[in-house]
Amino acid sequence: MGSDRGPGAVVAGLVLSAAQLPDASFLLHGDSAILSPLLARHPDLSSRVTLRHTDRVVTMSDKPSQVMRSGQGTSMWSCIDAVKNGEATVAVSCGNTGALMAVSMIRLRKLPGVNRPAIACMWPSRNPGGFNVMLDVGADIKAEAADLLQYAAMGASYARNGLKLARPRVGLLNVGTEEHKGRAELKEANDQLAAAAEAGGYEYIGFVEGGDLPSDRVDVIVTDGFTGNIALKTAEGTAKLISDFMREAFNAGILSKFAALLALNSLKRLQRRMDPRRVNGGIFLGLNGTVIKSHGSADETGVAAAITLAYQLSSAGFLERLAARVASTGRAGQDVAAEVGADGAEAKSTE
Amino acid sequence: MGSDRGPGAVVAGLVLSAAQLPDASFLLHGDSAILSPLLARHPDLSSRVTLRHTDRVVTMSDKPSQVMRSGQGTSMWSCIDAVKNGEATVAVSCGNTGALMAVSMIRLRKLPGVNRPAIACMWPSRNPGGFNVMLDVGADIKAEAADLLQYAAMGASYARNGLKLARPRVGLLNVGTEEHKGRAELKEANDQLAAAAEAGGYEYIGFVEGGDLPSDRVDVIVTDGFTGNIALKTAEGTAKLISDFMREAFNAGILSKFAALLALNSLKRLQRRMDPRRVNGGIFLGLNGTVIKSHGSADETGVAAAITLAYQLSSAGFLERLAARVASTGRAGQDVAAEVGADGAEAKSTE
Repeated sequence: MGSDRGPGAVVAGLVLSAAQLPDASFLLHGDSAILSPLLARHPDLSSRVTLRHTDRVVTMSDKPSQVMRSGQGTSMWSCIDAVKNGEATVAVSCGNTGALMAVSMIRLRKLPGVNRPAIACMWPSRNPGGFNVMLDVGADIKAEAADLLQYAAMGASYARNGLKLARPRVGLLNVGTEEHKGRAELKEANDQLAAAAEAGGYEYIGFVEGGDLPSDRVDVIVTDGFTGNIALKTAEGTAKLISDFMREAFNAGILSKFAALLALNSLKRLQRRMDPRRVNGGIFLGLNGTVIKSHGSADETGVAAAITLAYQLSSAGFLERLAARVASTGRAGQDVAAEVGADGAEAKSTE
Repeated sequence: MGSDRGPGAVVAGLVLSAAQLPDASFLLHGDSAILSPLLARHPDLSSRVTLRHTDRVVTMSDKPSQVMRSGQGTSMWSCIDAVKNGEATVAVSCGNTGALMAVSMIRLRKLPGVNRPAIACMWPSRNPGGFNVMLDVGADIKAEAADLLQYAAMGASYARNGLKLARPRVGLLNVGTEEHKGRAELKEANDQLAAAAEAGGYEYIGFVEGGDLPSDRVDVIVTDGFTGNIALKTAEGTAKLISDFMREAFNAGILSKFAALLALNSLKRLQRRMDPRRVNGGIFLGLNGTVIKSHGSADETGVAAAITLAYQLSSAGFLERLAARVASTGRAGQDVAAEVGADGAEAKSTE
């Protein structure tokens, strides 16, 4: 209900993905007065789609804290509760990100051992699969070393299950690749991520820079939610600027327009590679349930991509695998932290 | 001497800018055995270029802390000292950024009232001038509210003198535009920047997001050096990725290649708008002297652009204007901080 394009785009995406995923079934949450007529056009899906009527809607301008207190009875709340109650294996929403995270946190609760949940996104890259994973892109504005360690374990688990990479390469985002660079918590995280690589099932490649986000020498980029959000929006803004400038360049003069016509296929090929709809969906990691946040402005293709990702992850038993990795990585990280602490204490006592 | 392309590119850039700036004269620092032959090809410039021989060179891999201790006798040190001694009005270098900042700090010292100097860069934008200013992009990894206030004053001063904007619009980079978003120091800075806008000669537009960096609703974007560095490198990496993908798209098949040939003018027009060489040069702000850091890989066009920027700023009496703004903005900001503090104390006492 809270999508920028309205429920029509969401239902169209559902229809599209239902055709691709013959053994998936759907719970659709929202105003039945609006949704029933949309579903009525697809009688073949009636056995696979269950409508859950709700009176209220979370809008894009609602504050997360308010929704957390009084969001009961909204389609968003109902959707998350379906996961909580075990009726659904995974939730997909195009609504207000902050509110969705707040409702997910309060209803699903954090996984044992997770301090801060994170939002992971797919990042267009030079890797064969076409994408890297970056997290956190905005669940929380800060992260301590221990949080970054959990992000590494969760991001690697996501890359294994979402990108089919056996042993993802994890990098930690910093302002330089040298070990002495960056903030104190990054140096600490650098040690912990290296020590927990075996337990987390990833290869740790050390610090990476902003220019490495699309690189093929890394698969998972770990950072705090403030930095990750700025980086994500900066990249989107840069891509939009270039695309606008390109349009203007091709619209200047008859010859350019003719060239653009001939170049149409090439330009379309480029657009496909950069198309955010292909991997629509940030994923909330670190909760007792999988929640996928589709772009608010996603069209049917985008919504279908988010649903397909949801289906793929739940088929792979993603949540259980992730929980196991978080637990073992946490132990490995704590061992390091304890050792470092002990070493530090010893060093001090001998000074 | 420390440029990625070697002294040849720097001398070629000097020759190019000398032709455009007939009343500029130059001090060139480095190994005379290498530089003399390069200069000998341009006898017409002999009266305008003075060679300062140095034996040593700062390389890209030298650590800033080492250069700070033992960098005397390098071309970089000699270049900065020329500004310190008043022989040069502005310094331009293609060398190691961290080392250049370290040497500049220790030799030129901070402007009165400045706690953390900053590096400002030009950012391709939708504004009529084609660029926005962003700072700090990497002088320091952290910034308190008072530092961000100084960045605002310095960035606005730079936009007035470098972009010819009478009253630049300043925005503070955050993960959302709502007032309650972001870290504590950002909320504090938000108040201080608003209160000091009159004294700083800028219009304060509040929080902006990563997507607003190329926007035409802002001229100067203020952030800490960690976030700014990540954003800058992320944008560069994104532009590089798109340009590589575009090249691949246009190389796929005969028709695409033919189209690319026809589209050549359009593509060149696009490239010109995004060309980093057009505004090559980060600028160090907050020191007793103006230092411009050209890209390490700048070619002659890039070096000439950095020199032209240097010339333009020194002709405008930039340093004196900036110092005056920092002083008055600092006073205005402190007044706010004091008021807020007093209010806070009062509020507490009446509880």
